[in-house]
Amino acid sequence: MWYSNVIVLSEMISYYDISGCYILRPWSYKIWDLMQQWINNKIYKLGVENCYFPLFVSKDRLEKEKDHVEGFAPEVAWVTKSGDTDLKEQIAIRPTSETIMYPAFSDWIKSHRDLPLKLNQWSNVVRWEFKDPTPFLRSREFLWQEGHTAHATFEEADSMVMAALDLYKKVYQDLLCVPVIPGYKTNKEKFAGGHQTTTVEAYIPMNGRAIQGATSHNLGQNFGKMFDIKFQDEKGESKIVWQTSWGLTTRTIGVMVMVHGDDKGLVMPPRVSPLQAVIVPILSKKLTMENANPYCISILEDLESQGLRAKYDDRSMYNPGWKYNHWEQKGVPIRIEVGPTDIEKNQVRVVIRYNGEKIDLPVADLGVYIKDKLEDIHKAMFEKAVTERDEHVVKVTEWKDFVPTLEKKNLVLTPWCGPEFEEWEEWVKKTSREESLKNRGEEFEEDTTATSVAAKTLCIPFDQPELPEGTMCIASGKPASCWVLWGRSY
Amino acid sequence: MWYSNVIVLSEMISYYDISGCYILRPWSYKIWDLMQQWINNKIYKLGVENCYFPLFVSKDRLEKEKDHVEGFAPEVAWVTKSGDTDLKEQIAIRPTSETIMYPAFSDWIKSHRDLPLKLNQWSNVVRWEFKDPTPFLRSREFLWQEGHTAHATFEEADSMVMAALDLYKKVYQDLLCVPVIPGYKTNKEKFAGGHQTTTVEAYIPMNGRAIQGATSHNLGQNFGKMFDIKFQDEKGESKIVWQTSWGLTTRTIGVMVMVHGDDKGLVMPPRVSPLQAVIVPILSKKLTMENANPYCISILEDLESQGLRAKYDDRSMYNPGWKYNHWEQKGVPIRIEVGPTDIEKNQVRVVIRYNGEKIDLPVADLGVYIKDKLEDIHKAMFEKAVTERDEHVVKVTEWKDFVPTLEKKNLVLTPWCGPEFEEWEEWVKKTSREESLKNRGEEFEEDTTATSVAAKTLCIPFDQPELPEGTMCIASGKPASCWVLWGRSY
Repeated sequence: MWYSNVIVLSEMISYYDISGCYILRPWSYKIWDLMQQWINNKIYKLGVENCYFPLFVSKDRLEKEKDHVEGFAPEVAWVTKSGDTDLKEQIAIRPTSETIMYPAFSDWIKSHRDLPLKLNQWSNVVRWEFKDPTPFLRSREFLWQEGHTAHATFEEADSMVMAALDLYKKVYQDLLCVPVIPGYKTNKEKFAGGHQTTTVEAYIPMNGRAIQGATSHNLGQNFGKMFDIKFQDEKGESKIVWQTSWGLTTRTIGVMVMVHGDDKGLVMPPRVSPLQAVIVPILSKKLTMENANPYCISILEDLESQGLRAKYDDRSMYNPGWKYNHWEQKGVPIRIEVGPTDIEKNQVRVVIRYNGEKIDLPVADLGVYIKDKLEDIHKAMFEKAVTERDEHVVKVTEWKDFVPTLEKKNLVLTPWCGPEFEEWEEWVKKTSREESLKNRGEEFEEDTTATSVAAKTLCIPFDQPELPEGTMCIASGKPASCWVLWGRSY
Repeated sequence: MWYSNVIVLSEMISYYDISGCYILRPWSYKIWDLMQQWINNKIYKLGVENCYFPLFVSKDRLEKEKDHVEGFAPEVAWVTKSGDTDLKEQIAIRPTSETIMYPAFSDWIKSHRDLPLKLNQWSNVVRWEFKDPTPFLRSREFLWQEGHTAHATFEEADSMVMAALDLYKKVYQDLLCVPVIPGYKTNKEKFAGGHQTTTVEAYIPMNGRAIQGATSHNLGQNFGKMFDIKFQDEKGESKIVWQTSWGLTTRTIGVMVMVHGDDKGLVMPPRVSPLQAVIVPILSKKLTMENANPYCISILEDLESQGLRAKYDDRSMYNPGWKYNHWEQKGVPIRIEVGPTDIEKNQVRVVIRYNGEKIDLPVADLGVYIKDKLEDIHKAMFEKAVTERDEHVVKVTEWKDFVPTLEKKNLVLTPWCGPEFEEWEEWVKKTSREESLKNRGEEFEEDTTATSVAAKTLCIPFDQPELPEGTMCIASGKPASCWVLWGRSY
């Protein structure tokens, strides 16, 4: 399979002997590290502070919010022993930290003076899923940040929800060159125990699937009531806080790989690439390491002085061809080749990973040129992904066109009776699956949870096309209240 | 108890409903964050790359290195269930990651070209200890970094061990103002499964106890043999790698609190304090918020332009006295008071947390002054801690003086037959405990593991005093081969 080959050969991932757990090697972890720095900088400006809560949660607390625990219970990993001794009470490993954090919120928040409270943590969480695990996209342990805030009003909470979602949109678009569609989740797909979930949804060209990029939840007062998080307002009245939570995971890296990769391997978006440029000397009788070194090192210094992440690959045990292949597989945006003629002419050959472009350039001001070029590459990669995505978001207003459109690797935008009609959402999921399997001549199986060919709602996009009066829902035939986006999803 | 009051009131820690687990609030997490940035920067220069390995380890792998598993087995937390389903095989939560990482090392390392391999990860680990847990100092889950490297020769590995230990010494001394004594652990106290352990040991003045600051292990070839980590050297011969591992935990924060804190609360070392200076306006009829604001904001901007972490506490719902107390409790190194007279005279009053010094200063060039002053405070806090520590490291050459010296809140430096004589180390532990309890008129209990009054070896300091010929070991009476440091330890 292309994906697992690419992430292994590029040294992003190594497989591990426990199913659903993976090793993030430096080549992928560095991307996460760069995203962390970027996000920390942004959330700091939103008044959010980092902290760390425990990995473990007691059974009592985990089960306090009923809808919440129902959503997570089947996937919870339980610790029952230490050494050879059984624990008196089993304890859960966090699948998410609402029930871990909110009892503390209840202790800390007494007065309107204590609000808003805005916290974030970077941590590992465990969801023992039985769907096929895939590195980055669906793993049993994954890394994420989770933001948790409490506010005096619904409006304040909602604007936090939107600020977090906007941040996630920027992570995808401004860092990873991946366009996303922001919108609301339907009731059926929202966060267990929350009031409303917003999401950014991405499109994977190679298989036409959708993938949830990140979510930001307006929790309303549900958790506040369960965990008794009250404050005295300015009039001395006791009120329940309004809360949000929002998370972005290492899934981002997998989405980036799938959207941009090609036959040669990774194609890294410049802003998060662990290395942005690599210098390869073409050694021969005409060009010894001794002669190449000063030339290449001065290029390296020029690049670094522009704040770029660059490397001079001076290893003598590998030939240039091996190195080209190695760094192409790893997706480094720019390769700088230095041969004997280049040195004579005081130039270099620049090779662009994402489109194979080759340019001969003078070494003077090379750093400045490369810095600008990386920004051009960012824009071009993003534009390309937008075009590809836009071609595959198709409006459908009659059910007969739904599955055929889906089959052509499209996401489908349809009129919809509304996010509260879960039974019709279920109907679409089931019916799209049946029709797809019939088209393929496969037997229809009873298991309606299989997501391989069923369409599910991705979101009700914030950006709604016009909805002419009298438009009917594609499924129920009731009057439509909005457009909803469907897809075969990860 | 002073310690738990201080860490709770300063908003560093909140207690949690699972024993041995604690909440690191922003006021402590920020310190960890600053230490992370500093360490990442340093290890990057040592060629170490960050990565992330799984939280879980299978029973098979955990038990592969026999001495290693013996050291950790009683403290391992086991996951046996997901949801309501029993796992086929129980899996352990990492107490440390040697057995998680080294099978991958075996896959990745084939040739001398793949060496050295230098990795680090920032993660949480779990050791389900039954000793009294204490926030930061001994918790069941804690945060740390763990470095793991593989080398072609013993010498290269050993120089990595020393480079990591030197880094830890600098973390304590250059960031936390805590002097440490570097040295070798005895065989009895070394890392389970390793060849040799180096350590930095700190002294806690308030109770005269020692505490292990951080350790760096030369693993020799033990793990390499067990996990079959081989490489072809330049002659084509198959060799086993030489390995190191080294870790520093959130314990550092607790040590810092204990060494510097006073009756008013925390005293923060300037280089890691989340805030280095706080500006408090003294509002009254003579000085309204409107008048204070521009004056204080321009001071804040001046401080920030010097790269300082500063805050203007403009909250109107608290009076200055409350604020002084609040920021003193949190240990902020410098308070800048702004009253009506200060504004008239174009000055401020600067109050130093660690010694209470008060200085009236013109606002011109205040930022530069504060920046320098913070460095002075760093030096003074470190000097003070060195003096206090030095007064309490006492040489003892006769056993009769050992326990009486220990009782006076001292660490004890004695001549010693050698790190291989574990039986005499055990004898000192047992005998020092018996004598101490006798002195207190308490019953001698059989449990010799209790560390409350027993002395144990801290390290064989690198910096060895002269050892005159004919000096005898204080315990065995055999000829001494070195000086060893003893203490009542955490």
